[in-house]
Amino acid sequence: MSETVLAPALDEKLRAARTASIALAQASTSQKNAGLEAIARAVEEGAARILPANELDLANGRENNMSQGLQDRLRLDESRLAGLAAATREIIALPDPIGTVLRGSTLPNGLQLTQVRVPFGVVGAIYEARPNVTIDIAALALKSGNAVVLRGGSAAENTNRVLVELIQGALASVGLPADAVQTIDEFGREGATQIMQARGLVDVLIPRGSANLIDTVVRESKVPVIETGAGVVHLFLDKTADLEMATEIAVNSKVQRPSVCNALETLLVDSVAAERLLPPVLKALADNGVTIHGDDRTRELYPDAVPVAEDDWSTEHMSLDLSVKVVDDLDDALDHIRTYSTRHTESIVTNDMATANRFLAEVDSAVVMVNASTRFTDGGEFGFGAEVGISTQKLHARGPMGLPELTSTKWIVRGEGQVRG
Amino acid sequence: MSETVLAPALDEKLRAARTASIALAQASTSQKNAGLEAIARAVEEGAARILPANELDLANGRENNMSQGLQDRLRLDESRLAGLAAATREIIALPDPIGTVLRGSTLPNGLQLTQVRVPFGVVGAIYEARPNVTIDIAALALKSGNAVVLRGGSAAENTNRVLVELIQGALASVGLPADAVQTIDEFGREGATQIMQARGLVDVLIPRGSANLIDTVVRESKVPVIETGAGVVHLFLDKTADLEMATEIAVNSKVQRPSVCNALETLLVDSVAAERLLPPVLKALADNGVTIHGDDRTRELYPDAVPVAEDDWSTEHMSLDLSVKVVDDLDDALDHIRTYSTRHTESIVTNDMATANRFLAEVDSAVVMVNASTRFTDGGEFGFGAEVGISTQKLHARGPMGLPELTSTKWIVRGEGQVRG
Repeated sequence: MSETVLAPALDEKLRAARTASIALAQASTSQKNAGLEAIARAVEEGAARILPANELDLANGRENNMSQGLQDRLRLDESRLAGLAAATREIIALPDPIGTVLRGSTLPNGLQLTQVRVPFGVVGAIYEARPNVTIDIAALALKSGNAVVLRGGSAAENTNRVLVELIQGALASVGLPADAVQTIDEFGREGATQIMQARGLVDVLIPRGSANLIDTVVRESKVPVIETGAGVVHLFLDKTADLEMATEIAVNSKVQRPSVCNALETLLVDSVAAERLLPPVLKALADNGVTIHGDDRTRELYPDAVPVAEDDWSTEHMSLDLSVKVVDDLDDALDHIRTYSTRHTESIVTNDMATANRFLAEVDSAVVMVNASTRFTDGGEFGFGAEVGISTQKLHARGPMGLPELTSTKWIVRGEGQVRG
Repeated sequence: MSETVLAPALDEKLRAARTASIALAQASTSQKNAGLEAIARAVEEGAARILPANELDLANGRENNMSQGLQDRLRLDESRLAGLAAATREIIALPDPIGTVLRGSTLPNGLQLTQVRVPFGVVGAIYEARPNVTIDIAALALKSGNAVVLRGGSAAENTNRVLVELIQGALASVGLPADAVQTIDEFGREGATQIMQARGLVDVLIPRGSANLIDTVVRESKVPVIETGAGVVHLFLDKTADLEMATEIAVNSKVQRPSVCNALETLLVDSVAAERLLPPVLKALADNGVTIHGDDRTRELYPDAVPVAEDDWSTEHMSLDLSVKVVDDLDDALDHIRTYSTRHTESIVTNDMATANRFLAEVDSAVVMVNASTRFTDGGEFGFGAEVGISTQKLHARGPMGLPELTSTKWIVRGEGQVRG
C-alpha cells in the first residue's frame, strides 16, 4: 500500500516486520514476558559479544572527534548492561495494555460495543548513538505487542547489530518471531529516509534525539509521527514562594543533569519577590557552576549575570546556562511561557492556592507542576518502566510515553443480526 | 513558530483562533452549553439568511454541472436546518470531556500525578461542499473547548459564510470569543495549502471528504493529521451463517446508503457454504439493484454476475456495485481482508463462537463486527452525537470520532518541594 518504491531489501524487512506483528498481536502476556526475560538474560550473558562491538564504535567515535557527552551516551559496560537487564525485567512487572477495555456500552438496539487496546502493528524508531534506547524500545514494543524497526545511528552501528542479534535469538528461544525486532542501520541514512515514506508498512514513527533529527522527521515523514521534542523548560517563582524550596527546586531542575530535555532553561520570578528571592537563588545556582543570563531587572539585583539575548529565551542550551527574567506578575509569566515554551514541562513554586490552580489550568504543556523539580518529567519517575520518549505534540501521546502510548484501539461490535433502519 | 510564511490575513486569523482557544479552554461547561443553545437557535431562526445563500451555491453548482449526489449534500431546507439544530442540542446533553481525569497515582516520593483531558487548541477542518459539516464540527469543537478553522470548499462558500457569521454571533451573544469559529474559504485553495503548513498555529488537521482530498492532506501537511479514510468494507459469510441473517445484513450493508464509507464493497463467502448462501443472497442484492462483480467460483453459482477485476478488490465504489469472492475458509478470508481492506469496518455473519472470536481478534480494522450491518459504524449510531469523521489511522483516534477524540491530555504534578535524587 506504500506509494514510494523502497529498496527491495528494506521492503522485505518491513514486510517481515508486518508478518511478525500479526503473530505478536495475538501473543499472550506470559509469552511476551518470557520473551522479555530471555532478552534480559541475553543482555546479561552477552557482554563478551556486546562490549567489544561497543569498543569498536567508541574507537570510531574518537577517530571522528565525537564529543565526550556523545561518547558517554554511547558507552556500555558491565554495570550499564546490568541496568538494561533490570529495566527490561521491570517491564515484565507492568500490566499488559493489550486487550484492556477502555469504553463500552449496549446500544438501544442491543448492539454491544467495546473499545479495546490493540498494538499499533509496526513501530519505527529513529534515534542517535544511544544503544540503551535499542533495548528500551525493543522491550516496550514487545510488551505492547508491536514489531519494531530500529534506525539507531551509524555511530552505534556495531553495538546495535549485536544487541539486535541477541534480542532476535531471545525471541526465537521462546517461540516468538525473531523479525519482531529488526535494525535497518545497514541501509544508512537512506534507510531513515525510506521508512519515512513507508506509509502502510510502518504504522507510527518515533524520532528521538536532536531537535534537528526530530524536525527532519516531522517535516518529511508520510508515516504518522509522534514528536519527542526539545524542552525549553520554565520555572516560575511566585511572590509567595518559599526561599528554601525555590532554591532547591531551581538548583535540582538546572544542575542535576543539564544535558537532558527536562532540565531547566528559563527562570522567571515575580517582580514583587525578586529582591527577596533572586540574589540567593542565583548565587546557589552560580555556586553549582551555572552561568546566569539575566534581563535588565535581573542584572540590577544580580550584577554577575551576563546580559541575556533575545535568542536565549527560545534556546534549549542543554548546558549550565540559564536565562533569568523578572516578570511583572503571574499574567506576565504565563504570557512569557506561552510565547517561548516548547510545551514540554513548566513548574511553579508558590504557596498560594489560587495562583497554583491558575498556573496548572492555563499553562498548555505536556507536564505542568507545582512545587516540584522539572526533572521529574520522565517515564521511569512516573512509574512507566522504561520510556519511549517524551511527546511534546498533542496528538495521541503527550508527555512521557510508556506502554499505553504504544497502542491503538479498535471497536468491537457484537450483534444478533441488527440492521440499520 | 510556523516556518512557512503565511498570507498576512490568514496568519492573523490563525492567531485570533489561538487567542480564542486560550479563553475557550478555560470556559465552563455551562458557558459552552449556552453557546451551543445559541447556535441551535441561530440556525433555526436564520433560515431567511441561510436558504438564499444556499440557493446561490446550488445555482452555481448547477451551472458547473455539479452531480445530483453533490447537489443533494449541498442542499439545505427548513427540515434539514431543524435537524442541524437538533443535533447541536444533542451535543449539549453529552458529558464535557474537558477536565476528565484519565489516570492518576501518588508516587513513592509523594508527588501526586493526574492525567487530565484538555482541548487540542486550534483544530483545522478541510471538507467538501457539505454545509452540515460546518455546524457539526463547530458544535463538537465548541463543546470540547477547541477553536476551529474551517475550509469548507468553494461550492458551499456562500452557505458557509452565512453559517459561520451566525455561529460567531451566537458565541458573542453568550460572552464566548467569536473568533473560536472561523472560515478561511475566502483564501480559496491557497488557504487549504497554507493551513497544512501552519505547524505551531494549528494543532491538528482533519480532512473529511474524497479519497483524493484526504491523500493530499496526508501527503502535504506538516500539521499532525487525523485521516478519515475511505472504506473498502468487507462482510464474510462463515459456513455456519444463518441464511436469513446473512441476507438481511448483506442487503442493509450494501443498499441502505451505498454512497458512504461504511457501505459494503466486498462480500466473502466460505466455500463450504457458498452453494447454500450465495444464490439467494446475491439474488436479494440484485433485486435491490446491486450489480454483482464475481470471481470464477461465484459466477459458477450465480451466472448473472459480471467478472470481477483485480482493481475491484481495492475499490470503494460508493455505488450499487459489489465485489464477491468465494474463499477457501476463515484463513483465506482473513488473508483477503489483510490484503485489500482499508481497515475501516469488517463484519462476519456466523453462529460459531470460535470463528467469531478469531475474526474479532485478528481483523485489524477500526471497527470489527459480528452479526451486524457495517452501516452501524457511525458516531451518531455509537451514541457520540454528531461525528467529526471516521478515523482509519491508528494514531490518536480510530473509528467514529466524537468529543473525546477532539482532546489531548496533560499531566498535572503536585508536590511539596520534591527534587530528584
